[in-house]
Amino acid sequence: MKLKIGIIGFGTVGRSVAKILCRDDSGPLLLTHICNRNMERKKIEGLPAHIHWTSDVNEVLASDVDVVLELIGGLEPAGDLVRRALRGGKSVVTANKLLISEHGPELADLARKVGRRLEFGASVAGGIPAIIGIQEGLAGDRLYRIAGILNGTSNFILTKMEATGATLEATLKEAQERGYAEADPSADIDGIDARAKLVILAQAGLRLRVRSEQIPCRSISLVEAVDFMYARELKCAIRQISVAQKDTVNGVRLRAAVQPALVPADSLIAHAQGNQNIVMATGEFAGRMIFAGYGAGGDPTAVAVISDLYAIARSAGAPPEALPGAAEVPDSVTGDFTVPHYLRFVVRDRPGIVAALATILAKYDISIDALLQKPGFPHSALSFVMTLEACDSAELNRALAEIAPLDFHVEPPLCLPVFVD
Amino acid sequence: MKLKIGIIGFGTVGRSVAKILCRDDSGPLLLTHICNRNMERKKIEGLPAHIHWTSDVNEVLASDVDVVLELIGGLEPAGDLVRRALRGGKSVVTANKLLISEHGPELADLARKVGRRLEFGASVAGGIPAIIGIQEGLAGDRLYRIAGILNGTSNFILTKMEATGATLEATLKEAQERGYAEADPSADIDGIDARAKLVILAQAGLRLRVRSEQIPCRSISLVEAVDFMYARELKCAIRQISVAQKDTVNGVRLRAAVQPALVPADSLIAHAQGNQNIVMATGEFAGRMIFAGYGAGGDPTAVAVISDLYAIARSAGAPPEALPGAAEVPDSVTGDFTVPHYLRFVVRDRPGIVAALATILAKYDISIDALLQKPGFPHSALSFVMTLEACDSAELNRALAEIAPLDFHVEPPLCLPVFVD
Repeated sequence: MKLKIGIIGFGTVGRSVAKILCRDDSGPLLLTHICNRNMERKKIEGLPAHIHWTSDVNEVLASDVDVVLELIGGLEPAGDLVRRALRGGKSVVTANKLLISEHGPELADLARKVGRRLEFGASVAGGIPAIIGIQEGLAGDRLYRIAGILNGTSNFILTKMEATGATLEATLKEAQERGYAEADPSADIDGIDARAKLVILAQAGLRLRVRSEQIPCRSISLVEAVDFMYARELKCAIRQISVAQKDTVNGVRLRAAVQPALVPADSLIAHAQGNQNIVMATGEFAGRMIFAGYGAGGDPTAVAVISDLYAIARSAGAPPEALPGAAEVPDSVTGDFTVPHYLRFVVRDRPGIVAALATILAKYDISIDALLQKPGFPHSALSFVMTLEACDSAELNRALAEIAPLDFHVEPPLCLPVFVD
Repeated sequence: MKLKIGIIGFGTVGRSVAKILCRDDSGPLLLTHICNRNMERKKIEGLPAHIHWTSDVNEVLASDVDVVLELIGGLEPAGDLVRRALRGGKSVVTANKLLISEHGPELADLARKVGRRLEFGASVAGGIPAIIGIQEGLAGDRLYRIAGILNGTSNFILTKMEATGATLEATLKEAQERGYAEADPSADIDGIDARAKLVILAQAGLRLRVRSEQIPCRSISLVEAVDFMYARELKCAIRQISVAQKDTVNGVRLRAAVQPALVPADSLIAHAQGNQNIVMATGEFAGRMIFAGYGAGGDPTAVAVISDLYAIARSAGAPPEALPGAAEVPDSVTGDFTVPHYLRFVVRDRPGIVAALATILAKYDISIDALLQKPGFPHSALSFVMTLEACDSAELNRALAEIAPLDFHVEPPLCLPVFVD
């Protein structure tokens, strides 16, 4: 018996899913319904005649489809739709990172209660089987760290800035013209998109329930061309890095943040070029595992969606979930990491600046590792860099609060963590 | 209800599995039996008292365990044990790459027939969830290429030779002393171990049934210190590369081989250091996905085994398999690839050598890309390198058969493929 599928939301991913599902009809999956607002404008050629096209989600919910594929995106009406589908006895597959990051645990509970499946493999890192790899492939391990590059647009921008020396504004404009960035790029650039994925990975891999707003984000728009120049000098690259790290020494603490950071230029994570994604999961027993590939785009995301459909087809009658260790709420969540840091200053040059900075850092017991100053900057806006030995970012922020009001700054100092593993 | 588990074969992996399974008893898995020849010598402290220790596999097979964990290795008696366990109504988890590469399809059929599960996630790349990632996470795609580094020992040796300039003999001796290589290292060095894993990946990912002996292997012992020097000049690394590539233009052809090959030094695959493994899977829709991490060792392999146990616990009552596209036997299998090649010669120098080589290559329509000769070699054993533009390796081998008898060789020429993606 075939699994009947109804697609709701017929954009790029929906069209890829329909194309792949309909290329042959020998498998266990049968596309029967496609639903979108103003359906007539969305219809495409070449799909089988049996498919029912509609603009009314209620037609899909009232039909005999076994699985509803939610591809609308956003919190509402997607959330309402998923709840109604589950309560109506249908399983749900979704690529909706926002919905799962905000309401994943509640929706998973509902699915369990009604004995149906909720799958969201496509909500993180598109075609990369990170969720299944982490949740099932590493079920036997105790993961304590997830780190990666979870937003292709900001990785495209940063790797492009690195290669060309161009400003963020110019690079963003090009990315928008080529369709790699949205007209409003803030969700990508400010880390909001990556954070939603990190919340889902923390739930799936670290078994921790955390809310998006608990995780600090910093925008990659803080990074300037000069930072890539200094980073290169330090044999580093600058990437938007998402990290979630579980620490169980005194209660359960989650350290998590999405921010621009320095990583060694020869590291695997720096290797992700253009709009590629990478997810690294570190466990107590298996060590560090890496999943990498194309994290977005119609076809890769469609592959993840269809793999979830196969998982449902395979498990007819199986309980929705029996993973080790139910998810727990951490005792505390912080964005602070004890790692080396990069500090970049732009100052009106005069004697005593380094002494002033060093005095404040010393007061907080923070050691300077190196001081870099490239030639050629004007005295009125001299750019130089300090690298610091590993220190707690909270402590460093206190030092920076004392440094910020000093009168020689031309622009606020930039502080980036350095993630070396 | 807990899934009762019996371990048969209590070596490094078995001990890691027992340790991890017994660290807490809240999960769905319960270790009840441990079996090994001369059990008394194998007993370890710290495991729960309810565990039944035995030297007799029949005791485990006659018991009420739900899953037999086969960790004996080798073809027999492991194969007989797995068949008896399945026929006795037990599911089986195994890390036995030799058994699965030789008899995987037959054993999977048997498991299907008796309605039990056969899982072998640990048989390839240890802790890396490559099998589950490929088989389930990419179920929605059509994979056509699998490539990777599947043997940690040979990767340890080659990356060490690259870093130190030492000979293979010296490096192997060190690896043996440090326990990274077997007393008889031929399965690792000659590619036999990697080939068994490639057979399993071709089955799981390309849905092709192929026998080990159909896939050519070449030993990494062909590689000399001088080759690393020239490879570096070419901005390449030398690695033991396993490739299986499906080509469906005229019937179904499998191109597959395990051999030392050049790869770009800045490629992800060259990035796998020491005994790490990497698996790259390329699909029609999702593009190239990468799985990397620790491919061997007690703990990583135990994680893969336990993840398989969780999969069985989750799927109680589910059919053993409903994957897209049943595996088929390819119409032909060849070890030939149309790629650039590296040719290294050691000759007694005299005028006309390059002309003689170039004439034969031209006859076979093979173009020379570059000629490299480092200074400092004696005239009596001068080492130089040619790189060739992409050509079919079968055609190149015909040219080499004409080149081999020429009278200036001090040792047989070395020909390595260059895999650039």
